[in-house]
Formats: sequence, C-alpha cells, structure tokens
Amino acid sequence: MKARLQRLIDNTAIPLLVTGGLGAMVVGSTAVPDSPQDVQFHSAVIVVAVLLLVDLGVRIWDAAGRGVADAGTPWHDRWLYISSPDGMIDVAAAIAVPLGLLLMPHFRDGYLFAIFWVMKYLQHSTGVGLLIRVAIRARTALMSIFTLFFVVFLFAATGAYLLEREAQPEAFGSVPRAMWWAIVTLSTTGYGDVVPQTIWGRLLDGWVMVGGIAVFALWAGIIANAFSEELRRRDFLRTWDLVARASFFQDLTTAAIADIVKLIHARDVRAGTVLFRRGQYGDAMYFIVSGEVSVDIRPEPKRLGPGEFVGEMALVHDAPRSATVSVTEPSSLLVLDIANFRELAGRRPELIATIEAEAARRRSANQAA
Amino acid sequence: MKARLQRLIDNTAIPLLVTGGLGAMVVGSTAVPDSPQDVQFHSAVIVVAVLLLVDLGVRIWDAAGRGVADAGTPWHDRWLYISSPDGMIDVAAAIAVPLGLLLMPHFRDGYLFAIFWVMKYLQHSTGVGLLIRVAIRARTALMSIFTLFFVVFLFAATGAYLLEREAQPEAFGSVPRAMWWAIVTLSTTGYGDVVPQTIWGRLLDGWVMVGGIAVFALWAGIIANAFSEELRRRDFLRTWDLVARASFFQDLTTAAIADIVKLIHARDVRAGTVLFRRGQYGDAMYFIVSGEVSVDIRPEPKRLGPGEFVGEMALVHDAPRSATVSVTEPSSLLVLDIANFRELAGRRPELIATIEAEAARRRSANQAA
Amino acid sequence: MKARLQRLIDNTAIPLLVTGGLGAMVVGSTAVPDSPQDVQFHSAVIVVAVLLLVDLGVRIWDAAGRGVADAGTPWHDRWLYISSPDGMIDVAAAIAVPLGLLLMPHFRDGYLFAIFWVMKYLQHSTGVGLLIRVAIRARTALMSIFTLFFVVFLFAATGAYLLEREAQPEAFGSVPRAMWWAIVTLSTTGYGDVVPQTIWGRLLDGWVMVGGIAVFALWAGIIANAFSEELRRRDFLRTWDLVARASFFQDLTTAAIADIVKLIHARDVRAGTVLFRRGQYGDAMYFIVSGEVSVDIRPEPKRLGPGEFVGEMALVHDAPRSATVSVTEPSSLLVLDIANFRELAGRRPELIATIEAEAARRRSANQAA
Amino acid sequence: MKARLQRLIDNTAIPLLVTGGLGAMVVGSTAVPDSPQDVQFHSAVIVVAVLLLVDLGVRIWDAAGRGVADAGTPWHDRWLYISSPDGMIDVAAAIAVPLGLLLMPHFRDGYLFAIFWVMKYLQHSTGVGLLIRVAIRARTALMSIFTLFFVVFLFAATGAYLLEREAQPEAFGSVPRAMWWAIVTLSTTGYGDVVPQTIWGRLLDGWVMVGGIAVFALWAGIIANAFSEELRRRDFLRTWDLVARASFFQDLTTAAIADIVKLIHARDVRAGTVLFRRGQYGDAMYFIVSGEVSVDIRPEPKRLGPGEFVGEMALVHDAPRSATVSVTEPSSLLVLDIANFRELAGRRPELIATIEAEAARRRSANQAA
Repeated sequence: MKARLQRLIDNTAIPLLVTGGLGAMVVGSTAVPDSPQDVQFHSAVIVVAVLLLVDLGVRIWDAAGRGVADAGTPWHDRWLYISSPDGMIDVAAAIAVPLGLLLMPHFRDGYLFAIFWVMKYLQHSTGVGLLIRVAIRARTALMSIFTLFFVVFLFAATGAYLLEREAQPEAFGSVPRAMWWAIVTLSTTGYGDVVPQTIWGRLLDGWVMVGGIAVFALWAGIIANAFSEELRRRDFLRTWDLVARASFFQDLTTAAIADIVKLIHARDVRAGTVLFRRGQYGDAMYFIVSGEVSVDIRPEPKRLGPGEFVGEMALVHDAPRSATVSVTEPSSLLVLDIANFRELAGRRPELIATIEAEAARRRSANQAA
Repeated sequence: MKARLQRLIDNTAIPLLVTGGLGAMVVGSTAVPDSPQDVQFHSAVIVVAVLLLVDLGVRIWDAAGRGVADAGTPWHDRWLYISSPDGMIDVAAAIAVPLGLLLMPHFRDGYLFAIFWVMKYLQHSTGVGLLIRVAIRARTALMSIFTLFFVVFLFAATGAYLLEREAQPEAFGSVPRAMWWAIVTLSTTGYGDVVPQTIWGRLLDGWVMVGGIAVFALWAGIIANAFSEELRRRDFLRTWDLVARASFFQDLTTAAIADIVKLIHARDVRAGTVLFRRGQYGDAMYFIVSGEVSVDIRPEPKRLGPGEFVGEMALVHDAPRSATVSVTEPSSLLVLDIANFRELAGRRPELIATIEAEAARRRSANQAA
Repeated sequence: MKARLQRLIDNTAIPLLVTGGLGAMVVGSTAVPDSPQDVQFHSAVIVVAVLLLVDLGVRIWDAAGRGVADAGTPWHDRWLYISSPDGMIDVAAAIAVPLGLLLMPHFRDGYLFAIFWVMKYLQHSTGVGLLIRVAIRARTALMSIFTLFFVVFLFAATGAYLLEREAQPEAFGSVPRAMWWAIVTLSTTGYGDVVPQTIWGRLLDGWVMVGGIAVFALWAGIIANAFSEELRRRDFLRTWDLVARASFFQDLTTAAIADIVKLIHARDVRAGTVLFRRGQYGDAMYFIVSGEVSVDIRPEPKRLGPGEFVGEMALVHDAPRSATVSVTEPSSLLVLDIANFRELAGRRPELIATIEAEAARRRSANQAA
Repeated sequence: MKARLQRLIDNTAIPLLVTGGLGAMVVGSTAVPDSPQDVQFHSAVIVVAVLLLVDLGVRIWDAAGRGVADAGTPWHDRWLYISSPDGMIDVAAAIAVPLGLLLMPHFRDGYLFAIFWVMKYLQHSTGVGLLIRVAIRARTALMSIFTLFFVVFLFAATGAYLLEREAQPEAFGSVPRAMWWAIVTLSTTGYGDVVPQTIWGRLLDGWVMVGGIAVFALWAGIIANAFSEELRRRDFLRTWDLVARASFFQDLTTAAIADIVKLIHARDVRAGTVLFRRGQYGDAMYFIVSGEVSVDIRPEPKRLGPGEFVGEMALVHDAPRSATVSVTEPSSLLVLDIANFRELAGRRPELIATIEAEAARRRSANQAA
C-alpha cells in the first residue's frame, strides 16, 4: 500500500508538481511586475517549493531502516540517503527557492532559483547516472582534451589580437576581447557579430575553425565511445540477472551463461503489449522470466508463465507467426532475435536442440487440434 | 504478370507520381494566387491525390489472402496491412491532401499537405526501417540525452535572462525570449540575431556553446553506434541466408557457417555487370548462389552457375586476373575478399584446400588449352 | 633508369606543375582583365595544360605491355589504363582547360576549369581510394540517411513557409524560398540572413536545428565507422604481405600468421631515421623484412639485415635502450609494441621464447665485451 | 627530500607561475600603454620569464646521470633531455619572451610571446602525449582527409566565384576572396557576413555545407577511433604492470594474465578516499597492489595491505556492503567490477573460487564476532 503510494508520488505527483512549478517560473518571468498574473505565478512557485520541502522531510525521516539490518542508528541510514546522488538532488531542489528568495537582492529574482528543480528530471533517468560514471571513467582523457582546447583558445585569441587590433580596435582591442571571437569561432557557432577583416586575421580564422572542429570531434568521440561501453556493461548486468533467474537456463555453467548473455537482451513489457500478431514475419523468440503471456489459439487462449518460452516456431520453421501473443501482466522477458538465435546454434547447439524439440511438439499439437 | 505490374507500379509509377505531385506543390507555392499557373499546379496536386487514394483502395483490397493460409477472414489480413508501417504510410499519404483541403481555412494551404507524400520515399528505403529499430533499441539512452539537453537548455535560458535582461530587454526580457537564444546557441547554429553583450552573459555563452557540442556529440555517438550494430545484424542475416543456400557450403555445421558468415558478404548484381577484367589486380573471389556468370575465355566463354565459384585463381596464385568475368543474368553472389580469404585459411583450412585444388585444376586446364 | 625518371615525374614534377598551374589560375582571377599580369598568369595556365596533355599521351602510349604477358593487343592494356581510376583522373585533368576554353562564352572563364587539376592530388592519396571503396560499401546506409535528410528538409521548408510567410514575405514567400533557410539551418551553418520572427516559426526552427544535428550525426558516424573498417582491412593486407615475407615467421601455419598479423604492424622507414636512442624507454621491437639497420655499439657498429630483429632487449629486461639504432637504407619493418608483445606472449609463447633466448644471448655478449 | 622538492616545483610552483604570468600578459593587454598598471603587468611577465629561464638551466644541469649507468658523458644525458618532448617545451617556454622582446618592433608586443607558456600545461597531460602518438599513427588517413577537404574547398571557392561575382563583386570578385566564404561555410561556422545571393550560388552553397559536414565528420571519426585505441593500449600497459606486481596473481601464466588484464582496471587512490560505505550497493572489489586500506569493523579497524583484497563479500553474496572501507595511504588498486567479476567466473573459475573461499571465511569470522 505504502509502496504504491510512494510510486505514485515518485512517478506522477512529483514530476507534475515540478513541471507545473517550472512552468509558473518561466511564464511568470514574462508578467508585468506586481500585476495580478505576476502574483499568481509566483504564488504557484511558492506552493511547489513548500511541497518539495515537505516531501524532503518525509523522505529523510523514512530513510531510517532502509539500510542493512544491523546498520546501527537510524541517522546513519538517513545520512546515507542525503549523501546519495538522489538525496543530494532532493536537498538541492528543496532549498533552491527559499535560498534564492533569501539571497537575491530583488525578490522577483529569487523565484528563478526554481530552475534547480529541473534536476529532478535527472533522478529517474538511468542515462544520467551512466553519464556521470562515464565522465568519471574518461576524466583523464576529457581533461586532456579540455586542456588542449584551452591552449588552442588562448593561442587563437592572442593571435587575433595581434593581427586585428588595428583594423577593429572595438572587437579585438585586447586579448580578453579577442577571446569572445575565439570561443564563438572555435565552437563553429559563428554569430557573425565579430569577423576578422584583415587578410592575416582571416587566414588565422580558417585554421581556428578547422582546429575547433578537430578538438571538439575528439571530445565527442571519446564521450560517445565511453558511453557506449558503459551502456553495454549495464545491459550485461541486467541481462545476467534475468538469465540467472530464468529456469530454462538453470543448469548452465557460469561460462555458458557468460556466452548467452552476449546474445540475448532483457526487456520489460507492460500488460497489454502485443508481442507479435498472427501472420507477421517472425524475427525473435521470448523467454518469460516473470509475468505471463497469452497465446491466442482456439478454442481458448493458452497462458505461459515463468520458465516457458514463446515465438520459437517462426524461427525454427522459418514461417510467419502462427498465433497472436500478448502480455497479460507486467513481465520481464529475455529476447533472442533471429541473428543471435543462429549464432547460438553454432555455440550452444544443445540449447537450440531443446528449443527445436519444443517447437516440433507444439507444431504437432497444433496440427492435431 | 500481376507481380510484374505491381513491381512496375511500386518502383516506377508511384515514385514518379509522388515526385511530380510534390514538385507541383512546391512550385505552385510560388504562383500568383488564382493565376492560370496556380490553377494548373493545384490541379496536378489533386490528380496525384486521387490516384494515391485509388492505389490505397486497391492495395487494401488485395491484401486479403497474403497472410498465412488459415488466417481466417480476409479482413484480418487487410488489417495486418493497414497496421503495418508500410500501410500506415500509404494511408497517411492518401488522406493527407483531402484532409488538408477540408481542415485548412484557406484552400491554397490545403495543398501544402502534399508534403506528407514525401514519406513514400521512406517506404522502400531499408535504412529507414533500420533507423526505426535503432531508435527503439536505443530509446533509453536517447531519452536520457534529451532530458540532459533540456536541463542544460533551461539553465542556459534562465541564466541568460538574469544576466542580459537589462542590456537587451528586447531579446532577453523574459525566460521564454531567452530560450530562442539558448536553442540557437546550444545547437551551434549561431544566427547572430541575438548575441549577449555583457561580460557575464558572454562567459555564460562560452560554456553553453561548449555544453551544446558535448550534449549533441553524445547523441550523435549513440545513434551512430547503434545504427552500425543494427546494420551489421542485418548483413549477418542476409549473408546467412545466402550461405545456407549455397551448395558449396552445404556440408558445414552451424558453427562453421557462423564462422564463415563473418568473413563473407552478400552482393546482388545486375545482368551485364563486369565483375573484373583480365589483367586487373585480383582482390576477391565470388561464390554464385543464384544466377549465372560468364568467363570470357577462348575459344568460347565458359558459363558458371549456382554452386560454382570464380576469381579464386588470382587469390591463390597472387597473379593478375587471367580472364574477364561478367554477369549474364541477375545474380546473388557471396564475395570473399583477399583479407578474409587469408583469415579463412587460418580458421577453416579444409575449405581453402578445396578452393586451391579447383584453382590448380583450372590453371592446368588453361595451360593445356 | 626509366622507372626512376617516371617516379621523379610522378612524385615531384607533376605535383609542382599542378600546384603552379592552380596558383596561376587562382591568382589570375584577381588580375585586371587584359592587364599584363592577367596575360602572364593565363599563359602559365596554358603551358601547364599543354604539358599535362603531353604527359597523358605518353602515359597512354606506355600503358601497352603493362598487363599480363598474353593480354593480346596493346590497346587492351591502354584501355585498362584509361578506364582505371588513375587514368580517368589523368584524362579529366588533361582535357579540362582545353574544354573550358572551348565551351565557356568568356575566354577568361575557361581558365577556371584548371580547378579539375586538383583531382591530381587525390591520385597518390591512398585514403581517397579507401574513401571510394567505403562509399560503395556503405552506399545503402548513406542513401537512406540522405533520403531521410531530404524528407526532413522538405517538411522544414513547407512548415516554415506556412508559419512565416506573412511576417517575412521576402524570405519565406514560397516553399523554394523557405528552402534556403531550411538548408542553412539544418546544416547548423546559421548565416543569420534569414531568421524566423514568429513564435511558431521559432518553435519549428528549434526542432529543425536539433533534427539537422541528429541526421548529420548519423551520416558522420556511418562514414567514420566504415572508413575505420576499411583502413583496418588495408593494414591487415599490408602487414600480412610483410609477415609472409619475413624469414623469422617462415615456419608458421596460416592460423599462426593470422594471429600475429593482428598484433604487429608494418612500417616503411627512410634511410637515416633513428629508431631509438640509447637510454630511452623501450616500447617496441622491430623485425627487419627488407633493408638494413645499424646498432651503434663499440668498437664498431653492428649491421642487421632481413630476417633479424632488434630492440627486443628493452622489452624482455624492462630496461632502457642499451644502444642507439638507426636505419641505413630504406627498410620495411614490422613493429611489435610492448602491449602486443605481452599479448603475443600469452598466445604464442614459443615465439616469445625464441626472442627471449636471442635477447639473453645478446646481453651476455654485451657483458662479455 | 630533493625528489619531494622537485615534485612540489613541478606540480605546484610551475603551474602557478605560468598561470600568473599568462594572466598578467592577458590582462596587461587591456591596460593603457605606459600607465602604472601596464608597467606592473609587464614586470610580472618579466619576472616569470626569468624564473622559467633559471628553472630550465637547473633542469638541464640536473639531467646528467639520469640515463643508464654507463651512458658515457653527462652531456649525452643532457642532450637526451633537451631533445625529449618535455625538454623541447621547457626550452620553448623559457626563450619565448626574451625572443619576443628581441624580435618584435614594438616592445609591448614582445610580452605576447608569453602565450607559449601555455604549452607547459600540456606537459603533465598524459592525453596530449597520446594525441601526438595518435596523430603519428593515423597520419596517412588524416592527410588524405585533409587533401580531400582542400579539393572540396578549392572547387567551392572557384564555383562561387563563377556564380556570384556579378551579384557581389566585393565578396566574390576573385577566387581568393571567395575562399573566405568557402572556409566559413565548409566549417559550418556561418558568420553571415558573406552570403550567396543568386539562386545558383545558393544551390552550390547547399552542397558545400553538406560536403563540409561529411568531410569533417570523417576526420572526427578517424581521430576519435584512433584515440580510443591508443587509450586502450595505454590502460592495458598500466594494468599489466600492476597485475604482474600483485602477489595474488603471482602464479598465473602469461596467457592467464593477458586474460585478466582485459577484465580489470588500475586505479590510483589518495589517502583518505572512502572506497565504499556500509549499506551501499556493492558493484566492485579491489585488489591492493601497494598502499593500505582500513576496514571499519568493531572492536577495531582491520588493516589490509599489498597482496590482499577487499569488497568481494558484496559481490559473492549479492548483499549490501557490510562495512565501510577507506584508504589510509596513497595506494594502487586493481578494480574488478561486478560485470567483469562474472565474466571472469566463466573464464577463470579457479580464481573466483579462491575469492569465494576467502569471502566465506570472512563472513563466518564476522558472524562469530
């Protein structure tokens, strides 16, 4: 009961609240100061801020007892929550507006601190957690590129100052001024408000543009590669958990599981999802780890539960789907697509043999019916 | 006969029709309203729209009987077609202009809905199907990045509003106004219509440009990686199908096929294509799965059909091609290039031995002649 | 003798000629028409054009006899040359300026066709050949992305026309006019000459910028991935050739060579290059395939030739280089760096044992000296 | 003692000095010539320049005796230092400002040569060394892309000159002038100061933008891929060193080490770092290569040193961390995360068995306590 309420709050109430509050802040910034609209929008921000504070209090209080059984004092658990990434975001979001109203000289500007609520969106995003891990892992490489970028940036600004200061004293009259041009050019944004006029300045500019692309490309490549690796690692862990729990793979050695985990992937499916329809081309089979699927055959649908699999007939006999299959309750499935089914046939023929035997049995049962 | 007509319609008539209709819509937008040209262009759009509606009707009608033999009612099959990606595009394209003419207040604007016909180009593009699969697979990662982008975007707009509103009330007078600057800068487009003027605004801008590149780079990297993987998967399936059908590889175990599929790739060739010319450097050999090739030797050309291979002599003897080989009818070939030929020599020496024996036999036959 | 002359022409004379001619064309475009400078520059272009025509003639004539011994008529060989990529570039470059002078209404514009000479730079660039192979291999994927780009482009232009035509009839008054904005925005170039003014136009623009980045990112990723693979394939072939010729690896099976080729890489070194200096940290060893290196030890330098290796002592004993080694004539080396040396130790211990035995022998020889 | 002083100078004094000097140069450029501030900033630059000269002298002097024992004259060692990348940067930084003051006609401009000090930041950046190696390795590919870029660039400029010179003689009146537009467009910077006006010029521009993205994407992809590979190679070497020194892995064959090195990674940790806290989710275990960690258990903390491991209990029993573990002195650790722990269980079950036995022993010891 309580868990369900908590889920409702986490997945629906808080996001709605935060979105509403952010909207009020954004739109409120367009209102005439002290007009009725202004007051309304800012009141809405205050209401959300108060609710977030209450929510934080409840969360901290509830954190006690969530740790390991003998963790000692409840405050140790509470501290664990506050110092976790989730907790830090909750705290930051809750105190942002109160702090803003306190610190900013103009009251109206304090409401802008509601912008920190946007971090709440990042809490349930698995990708952002990944991103932080990636940044930590690849920090040496990323810092190097940043240093390199900084070096190119300083050289560009100093060079442009030297070459353009006489033609355009306003824009290039000192190194700090030339820096604005340098960053706009290095990032290939190119506003066009500052453009070199001399021939030498333009030659330099050409190299700066090319250099900017090269440096950022490097950065992009490293982040993207590291992110892909981290993603693969997470999928590996998730799939391993499901494979280890699936009764079909129960008797396998760890080495065999390690093999299979590379070829299969996990998928969580909502109740009501149609896995495939009769007559479609079949490109994957499904192992049910938890939940239930329903095979729509006459005279009445057949239900399959944990430990069973479905969809193998189209793969084995290379025929269209012979029945529609849908999910009747939230399920965790392992999906083996046709390319990997074939790879697996090469690496673990005994597994495929079991699947094919079941497919043959079902087919003859179908034909008998 | 009917199949050929259908192919003609699908590959030639519909693309021409759609291109013509789109052209009429685009050029029609430049015509003076109600001028004779305007009427002509819009009539052309109407004609194409009607033809697409007729085409849709015929397709829906014909869809019956295309499913599995015992699929029950013909309407089940028709529904399968309509709910397939192909069918949805056909329906959208057919009803676009009628709906547009109905819904838009100005008649002239209804014709612009012909833009939806452009989706027809995506139907026969294998890549777009891939792209959709990729988007589904990588959706968690992509949504995370999008969330991150949104967070950075909101912070940038709020910050710029705070820092620049006094210097430029027109462009930065509220958070929504500052958002225009934020998106133009984050995407490194940099129109230059709105540029921060204060020193603090420019400092923020520098970080926003760098942040924009980092976020988009991440996005790019993930899409590109996922796409490459999906592409590899599709090639694997296509090649597997051909290898399994090629009589040369008939006696192999599944494990061996899985090995070979990684080293060989499928290629469909039109009649008349010259595979290689006498005297060229030889960098690949070809297995014929279906179709026919002709080896241009004296006194009369030798024809090779399914199950045979060609081009191995240059690989085995490291010599230039000894004859010109061309394709005489549409053929499916498996191409083994020299790098993979060598890898295969390491992994499956018995296959290479068979190929070398044939090469030796052919060489002595050539020398005898 | 003739070969040396040919190399001199190919690597020095032609590039110089082409660069000179291109320079004359570029600078000539700045001259006042019919001024003495104008005439001089254009005469230079003519001279280069004539020389290129002569060179083409000689090349075609010389092509006979370059094919296989029994290739029949010399014109078959000549045709092979003309229809090769190299030959096509030679022909295009040679006839560009004559054709330009013939076709263009203004004589001065004919000289601009010298721009086609720039293709000569691509002839000796191994990367460009790779690029063409890559484009052919990945053409399905690239075409799909291009189609997708075109679809997004058309939607953007039509949408912007609908939303902005009243605010800015000059820039968005028809779909073709809106296309200019669409391409400038989709490519994130953002000149800023045309910027949407309405709130809806700007919302559309935001999505177009994001969409443009996504589409181009995809394109970039696919080209880059395909290029990397092709590069790896070429290196594999080059290294295989050297490993197969190196007497040290003579007795290996094909499987063993396939293994080693992945861990070693080929390098061509000019005479006089210093491979490493005494006292440096040692991170690689070198197998000599052809050429000669000199080990700078007392009382007189030791020369090592094909089949021998050098630099293994620092790897085996984890010590700084004990002598300076330089290359005395142009050499082909196989470089095994320390990371791969260790991998090889795991996979092929017998090879490493041989190397270690030699290292021990040399060390004791050194110590005895 | 001397080593510690050297470390203090290298890691703290020199970076501070350089940053201060660069700041003085940058800010000095904004001062009114010959004002008191101007003099102060420039004096600061002079002071830093002198200190860098002194530092260089000491370094060269000290370089003697750092090479191998019998390297002969001390000047050979000194020369090794000066000709190393580190030494070259030291020399360039030290002589930059003196040279600048000597060479530049205006005294004020000589100070700008302090910009070369920025290279000092690159000295301790491992990434920059990697980058140079990458550039050398991938130079063939990078040069090819650069050539391709140059070809596209020249074609674009010549084409734009031909198409736009009449509409905009100022911006496109000669090929060199059109080059400015070409580079701004090809790099997608798009300042907007020069924009084609004719319909044909705009068509060309569309292709140039698309081409620019394609070429740079290629470049980016190649650099990023090569960099990733080089990074992996460096991590491999670093991890190998630690694994070879870790007593836990002492008895393994080279093949087994090569296996493990792929699954484990090295991490240097400062004293005081908390590896994990009691009650957290456990996702990695740690092998201590050097240094010491402290396990916070009652009645008194347990200290673990080189050869021991920690954190395995949470992995083996899939439970939260049962104690907080922190590092008490600077340590080198090998981190085995849970995904790789499972892979290793498949590949090297005997190692995991040893770890599990220890985990069981510790658990029963805990429960007994």
